Amino acid sequence: MALVVGEPEGVNEDSGVASQEILIVGGGIGGVAAALALCRQGRKVTVLERAPEFKEVGAGLQMAPNATRILRSWGVLDQVLEMGVQPKRLIFRDAVTGEQLTDADLRGEFAERYGAPYVVLHRSDLHAILVEAARKAGADLRTNADVVDVETRDDVARVRTSDGTVYRADVVLGIDGLTSSLRRKVSGDEVVASGYVAYRGAIPMDEALDVDDRENVVVYLGPECHMVQYPLRAGTMFNTVAVFKSPSFSRGEFVPADQQELQNAYSDCIPQVQRALLNLWKTVSWPMYDREPIDNWVDGRMLLMGDAAHPMLQYLAQGACQAIEDADAFDRISASVTDPHEWNAALAEFNSTRADRTARVQRTARTWGEAWHVNTPLPKLLRNLLFKSRKDEDTRYTDWLYGADSIST
Amino acid sequence: MALVVGEPEGVNEDSGVASQEILIVGGGIGGVAAALALCRQGRKVTVLERAPEFKEVGAGLQMAPNATRILRSWGVLDQVLEMGVQPKRLIFRDAVTGEQLTDADLRGEFAERYGAPYVVLHRSDLHAILVEAARKAGADLRTNADVVDVETRDDVARVRTSDGTVYRADVVLGIDGLTSSLRRKVSGDEVVASGYVAYRGAIPMDEALDVDDRENVVVYLGPECHMVQYPLRAGTMFNTVAVFKSPSFSRGEFVPADQQELQNAYSDCIPQVQRALLNLWKTVSWPMYDREPIDNWVDGRMLLMGDAAHPMLQYLAQGACQAIEDADAFDRISASVTDPHEWNAALAEFNSTRADRTARVQRTARTWGEAWHVNTPLPKLLRNLLFKSRKDEDTRYTDWLYGADSIST
Repeated sequence: MALVVGEPEGVNEDSGVASQEILIVGGGIGGVAAALALCRQGRKVTVLERAPEFKEVGAGLQMAPNATRILRSWGVLDQVLEMGVQPKRLIFRDAVTGEQLTDADLRGEFAERYGAPYVVLHRSDLHAILVEAARKAGADLRTNADVVDVETRDDVARVRTSDGTVYRADVVLGIDGLTSSLRRKVSGDEVVASGYVAYRGAIPMDEALDVDDRENVVVYLGPECHMVQYPLRAGTMFNTVAVFKSPSFSRGEFVPADQQELQNAYSDCIPQVQRALLNLWKTVSWPMYDREPIDNWVDGRMLLMGDAAHPMLQYLAQGACQAIEDADAFDRISASVTDPHEWNAALAEFNSTRADRTARVQRTARTWGEAWHVNTPLPKLLRNLLFKSRKDEDTRYTDWLYGADSIST
Repeated sequence: MALVVGEPEGVNEDSGVASQEILIVGGGIGGVAAALALCRQGRKVTVLERAPEFKEVGAGLQMAPNATRILRSWGVLDQVLEMGVQPKRLIFRDAVTGEQLTDADLRGEFAERYGAPYVVLHRSDLHAILVEAARKAGADLRTNADVVDVETRDDVARVRTSDGTVYRADVVLGIDGLTSSLRRKVSGDEVVASGYVAYRGAIPMDEALDVDDRENVVVYLGPECHMVQYPLRAGTMFNTVAVFKSPSFSRGEFVPADQQELQNAYSDCIPQVQRALLNLWKTVSWPMYDREPIDNWVDGRMLLMGDAAHPMLQYLAQGACQAIEDADAFDRISASVTDPHEWNAALAEFNSTRADRTARVQRTARTWGEAWHVNTPLPKLLRNLLFKSRKDEDTRYTDWLYGADSIST
């Protein structure tokens, strides 16, 4: 990676840029996943992270087979399995009545059909595994690097950070998340506020209250709210996510974690769900946003990936999975690039390969969330009957998302 | 049947009343069905009909196995099958896209499971068969008899008609339909306007336009509208029912058949559905009403049955079927009555036997109608997915309604 400190803008230094060099903006799960994939391919990769260290915040995260298949190809699945838990089943219950709505196998035939396991683990564990692997594979991971602009001239991308440093690369991957500053290069769109807020908690198992189920993912569906519970770190931790329609967030305000608002949102739910709110962290909450799908992620030699390209609501638990798919897709597409001039076609191919699929995931996640949160009798009845009609052998709702064929299109 | 013309009110003439006599108010399908069942049992039965003849208006009607099983036990099923059509399948389609949503077997395993056929026939044909059979069985069918009141004194019911005639009977069955005047004896409730209006048409098959399917019941589900099509009279007639939310009826007005309102209601539907509106009668329409379930149908020796007791929206096609179940249930319960004093217990037993079931049918019919008519994206998606998830071997939605066990409880 050619690093030129303080290069004045406009100076043509193309001769100093080594070919095949890739610069990644953003050191989250998507960024380090892409770095790992591309380093394994033999590319020279630099990752610029704004924060002072490569570290993820948050709680648990779900890795579906469409992502774990890729983690295995990168040689990190064993570590992921070691740090995570493979839940037996995904169980949905009505949060108001407690009634079980459906109970989906996540091992056995499911894992066999999709050729890879379903795993839940701590976000920071996944991130750490990917950072370590990317480093070992040769990625140059840099912190405190706050990118302010990317420009392409003569097939060279120039990346400027807030301290005046200018990096040059054949390709810049903008993987800087929901609030991506690089997205402004391709779209003037804004994030879309869902009105829903997530509270999370990943706490030691022996401190968690009312843990009935230590081996499954359990989802309670309530009116304008839901709760997800699963174990983490080989069952030594318990993860809880509570997501609800926040009156303050819906009004456009942002109110920091508000215990009263949280309690109120679950007041119609069974006591077990209400008590489980005590397993959440008290002082932090995550307002939930996504964006409308856009067609174009490319500006010159810059390409958006991950949440920067297609941020989604978390109802399908696919945010990180889709970022991993992106990394894998870009790895495959770029594998044949030997001449720097071929990058333009590679970026376009990635865009056309991935846009429809990720747009579908974005849209389906929204709809899935709506279906979870219905609060009027008829839609609730239809939703519950639909869930109860599901059978393990009916794979129509999962094949498009988890199936191996679904990704390579 | 003791008939006393011009008996002054208040005169005690109990001695003149023969025991075991039953008077039925209302000569529609429910009334003549009850008359048939009770005459077969050896009861003396008089039916009073307000109209100048025993005749049904309307178009087609569906007889599900819960009713055809009973028609068979009365010895009239062969005639019904001869006049009707046994559809092969019940097919639901999305009226806006034309997509098939589900396709339910109505013969084979279905008929076997429920021990009786599914038949569609003309209302007037079913009515005529029942009238003829009731007459043959000894029922006294009287027209132009407009009942104005029923009173019970000393275990004798006195029925007064508008011309001053007073009838006395051990039991009066009030089967005088949705707008039952006798219901006022047990409830001050009002009919509930659904806002939906039905247009019907039963026309010769060779005059019907765009008949693609002559052997099934086809239902198109649209936003705030639906359409049902099936053949009648051994396939020589074609029956169409269009039901939609009428703006004028929803405002509380009653507007006679309005072609413009009809066309507007189906304007989002596929051309095939819009053209099929031409198969409807032009000058008649039926605003649709039901009532809330009530607990008590008994006042002295008067008992409500059929629509007078539990009027329902037609979405389960169970109005006539439930009236036939009523007739059968009353027949069974009254079979053991030998002493007139036992009637009080028999009426109470009928009430307690039938109230929960018919209330469930009333409520489910409403919900079923709501599910058919959804007009917003998420409920429509859930409804369509639910319909598409249905399988013939899944009998959970029909067992409670059509199963033999369902009725005898």
